[in-house]
Amino acid sequence: MITRDIQIRVRYKETDAMGVVHHSNYVTYYETARTEMLREFGTTYRALEESGIMLPVRDVTMRFFTPARYDDLLTVRISLCEMPGVRMTFYHDVLNEQGELVNTGTVVLVFMNAATRKACRAPGWFAEIFRPWFE
Amino acid sequence: MITRDIQIRVRYKETDAMGVVHHSNYVTYYETARTEMLREFGTTYRALEESGIMLPVRDVTMRFFTPARYDDLLTVRISLCEMPGVRMTFYHDVLNEQGELVNTGTVVLVFMNAATRKACRAPGWFAEIFRPWFE
Amino acid sequence: MITRDIQIRVRYKETDAMGVVHHSNYVTYYETARTEMLREFGTTYRALEESGIMLPVRDVTMRFFTPARYDDLLTVRISLCEMPGVRMTFYHDVLNEQGELVNTGTVVLVFMNAATRKACRAPGWFAEIFRPWFE
Amino acid sequence: MITRDIQIRVRYKETDAMGVVHHSNYVTYYETARTEMLREFGTTYRALEESGIMLPVRDVTMRFFTPARYDDLLTVRISLCEMPGVRMTFYHDVLNEQGELVNTGTVVLVFMNAATRKACRAPGWFAEIFRPWFE
Repeated sequence: MITRDIQIRVRYKETDAMGVVHHSNYVTYYETARTEMLREFGTTYRALEESGIMLPVRDVTMRFFTPARYDDLLTVRISLCEMPGVRMTFYHDVLNEQGELVNTGTVVLVFMNAATRKACRAPGWFAEIFRPWFE
Repeated sequence: MITRDIQIRVRYKETDAMGVVHHSNYVTYYETARTEMLREFGTTYRALEESGIMLPVRDVTMRFFTPARYDDLLTVRISLCEMPGVRMTFYHDVLNEQGELVNTGTVVLVFMNAATRKACRAPGWFAEIFRPWFE
Repeated sequence: MITRDIQIRVRYKETDAMGVVHHSNYVTYYETARTEMLREFGTTYRALEESGIMLPVRDVTMRFFTPARYDDLLTVRISLCEMPGVRMTFYHDVLNEQGELVNTGTVVLVFMNAATRKACRAPGWFAEIFRPWFE
Repeated sequence: MITRDIQIRVRYKETDAMGVVHHSNYVTYYETARTEMLREFGTTYRALEESGIMLPVRDVTMRFFTPARYDDLLTVRISLCEMPGVRMTFYHDVLNEQGELVNTGTVVLVFMNAATRKACRAPGWFAEIFRPWFE
């Protein structure tokens, strides 16, 4: 399992009339954390797209514990538990500055050939990046 | 079980660089469908808030089947399966104009006293609106 | 000048921690109003894109008067003041249910050939739709 | 005049079906840059709100030059040109990694007493932070 901590500062735009972060934004926080996690491993989601591969989302789950507020500095603890194959599954714990659990969630993405829009396997060059952690 | 069909037109803003609706927007489509379903039953979520009750989201699940695109007229088929108690659970099937299944999802909300920020039961006047369908 | 009234219901997601509609959403309300105005004239922005033309935004101005709130039914009074040429300019007054002015704004879009990403003139078939109002 | 450079990484969610950043997001980028600029001066917009002051937006203008794309690292060059009085006016140049001008914009905010929802002057403790730059 690979885990990284990605920090995200809550924007005013992301709050709602309850005074807290609107629940839909966590989906975007997970996405931002995936982007930054890939960058830490020396690749980017943009490079994947430029190689003709897309990663549409297949499943999302979220559970909410404690609300987050404007200007909170959240930590998205993101984990990848398996080698990328036909899909990639990420787990997320979102923590606030007091270390309280704000939210947990999972996202399953599937590899897709951008030209044919058909499911495919992760490209070899991409999967190999993660091999050292899964042996 | 109560089911209603709510129509939502995809906005350009809701698309992403894959040319399809970004997955985070379905969370907002579900919310919009809840708002409109309550209105069809003669009440509003705003009335609930004005009576001192909030309905924060506890859980979300989503599964994606077929992408939706700009200007698609989506039908959110939203169902309430139980009398409102300490929580409300909604089920959603999102369909496109060809009747294809775009997305399914569930949302669990909990009743909360806005002043104390503590969990509570659905107010009687609110729960009674739905009683005829659950007897 | 052509003017149409387009109604938009405020979503909870569009509110912020001040309890009002976050100012960025009006840009999207204008976009939604443009989409619906074109539909009322028998065409769509999607048809324009499918014919190989894009309409990126060149300029936006907005002024805010009275805040809007969750579940308000807003009227976007959208006006087109000139025949589409190399650009289209829209004016907007956003009104609440009491007829108060919430916001005014302008959007200038430019016609662009999607293949070359170069500026171009409005296609003849598109511009002709609006000729009866500008003679 | 005070100028600071704030960096913002484009999120996938912020792109649209043209493959570029949707124009509405720049309003949020300006807001994020304001938040970070205040933090660099040793205060926060959150502190201002907690002292009973809100800063609703009165005016926005934006002009678009070059599109930005997913994962671009944008620089928002934000300037404050006058001492905060009854309003604050910010100017923004958004630049991409090649130093090209993506967008320019202005935002005018007004000081408002949160309790009365009436316009007011900037609190003394807040305005004084900026005095050294305007003498």
